[in-house]
Amino acid sequence: LLLLVLAEASLETIPKKLWSAPSVKAMAKRRGKAPGEMLLDRSYHHRAMKNLPNAEKRGRPDIVHFCLLTALSTPLNREGQLKVYVHTINDQIIDVDPKVRLPRNYPRFVGLMEQLFKTGRVPPKGPPLLQLREWNLEKLIEREKPDHVVALTSKGELQPLDSALGKLAKHERLMALVGGFPHGEFSQKTLSLAQTLLAIDPEPLDSWTVVARLVYEYERATSIAKSRLQAPRQPQ
Amino acid sequence: LLLLVLAEASLETIPKKLWSAPSVKAMAKRRGKAPGEMLLDRSYHHRAMKNLPNAEKRGRPDIVHFCLLTALSTPLNREGQLKVYVHTINDQIIDVDPKVRLPRNYPRFVGLMEQLFKTGRVPPKGPPLLQLREWNLEKLIEREKPDHVVALTSKGELQPLDSALGKLAKHERLMALVGGFPHGEFSQKTLSLAQTLLAIDPEPLDSWTVVARLVYEYERATSIAKSRLQAPRQPQ
Repeated sequence: LLLLVLAEASLETIPKKLWSAPSVKAMAKRRGKAPGEMLLDRSYHHRAMKNLPNAEKRGRPDIVHFCLLTALSTPLNREGQLKVYVHTINDQIIDVDPKVRLPRNYPRFVGLMEQLFKTGRVPPKGPPLLQLREWNLEKLIEREKPDHVVALTSKGELQPLDSALGKLAKHERLMALVGGFPHGEFSQKTLSLAQTLLAIDPEPLDSWTVVARLVYEYERATSIAKSRLQAPRQPQ
Repeated sequence: LLLLVLAEASLETIPKKLWSAPSVKAMAKRRGKAPGEMLLDRSYHHRAMKNLPNAEKRGRPDIVHFCLLTALSTPLNREGQLKVYVHTINDQIIDVDPKVRLPRNYPRFVGLMEQLFKTGRVPPKGPPLLQLREWNLEKLIEREKPDHVVALTSKGELQPLDSALGKLAKHERLMALVGGFPHGEFSQKTLSLAQTLLAIDPEPLDSWTVVARLVYEYERATSIAKSRLQAPRQPQ
């Protein structure tokens, strides 16, 4: 099982100190929502975000959207061997059901996330597909009990992903932390939770590129890739 | 060089017979644009699309958006060894400059594509980053002169991607056709332009998953992956 955590992800509702910014007030009016019910999004709130602490890591829900679509549509997920969590920049945990079919359309994804932050779960009734957990990253690790935690970071040791996963995938429950933010690095606190720090390219890569490669190599390192190729073809 | 063609992609302006549909008229009014200047998008025009021929392959510009972001952010592209084209369902060709930085935000991407269909190029002045070419897929192949054309399709022979690319990547100029549509298959005409039909999974995969895996294995099959790992680290 691969426990994929999109860590310190750029996903949050608009913080209080920005509620009176012109771009935020205009959006609230247009969308008929309270400022605190809407996602922080650099595409729209760039200027207002200027004085926000840690601003370069914030306001990019599109990264979470892409990474989730990338991870959830893989053969690994279809085989039931992937479990995805989003850990946000505010140390909240989103528990993602492997069967969720997320909207491909970005504005609809934003609406869904806003509903999640408001009500704590999506859909509001029935088995939850997305759930906001009262955990932080440490608590998540305590609960999921991975055998090993690897953080993918440009601060790590540069290694070919295939040989690194050849070893790491031997752990029954491998947790991989991939940064869900556009620039900068994991916090020291997050780094301290990983046993291995791994860099897969000399330059920083987009989060979705790391997610795609990691899942693919995990399939190859376990027997999943092979067994799918030997399975009978699905009727088209 | 990998010539990646997102083929028969779900990207077009709203066809004339839908201009009087309520969802189209409402959007035109809201956005202050003529119906024929806006992209067809199933998220908004689902009902209106019901009677459109070939409807299951149309109205998904988000697929083009994801696939381009996936392809353009890879090490292969940074090394100058990737050239991407979009071939649309209407047999138009979009020439994508490898250096283009596309908007991550979907509504902005849509705006950019609308500008492209209106003016034929983006930006309107200076060196074009996106260009609408007066070619079709056959003409593109004539101009780019690939040594080999492979189409990734569930109709192809099921093979592990690494061994398939181990052979295919020996061609100096390899062109790969990846379907840029949500359901269905390449047309016979497109299939007839490929020398190899390759399936990489028993089930159909999302286009961006195919793009990510293809580019990654191409890096591994050529010496690009290796040479990047041996290159001196970039200052962080």
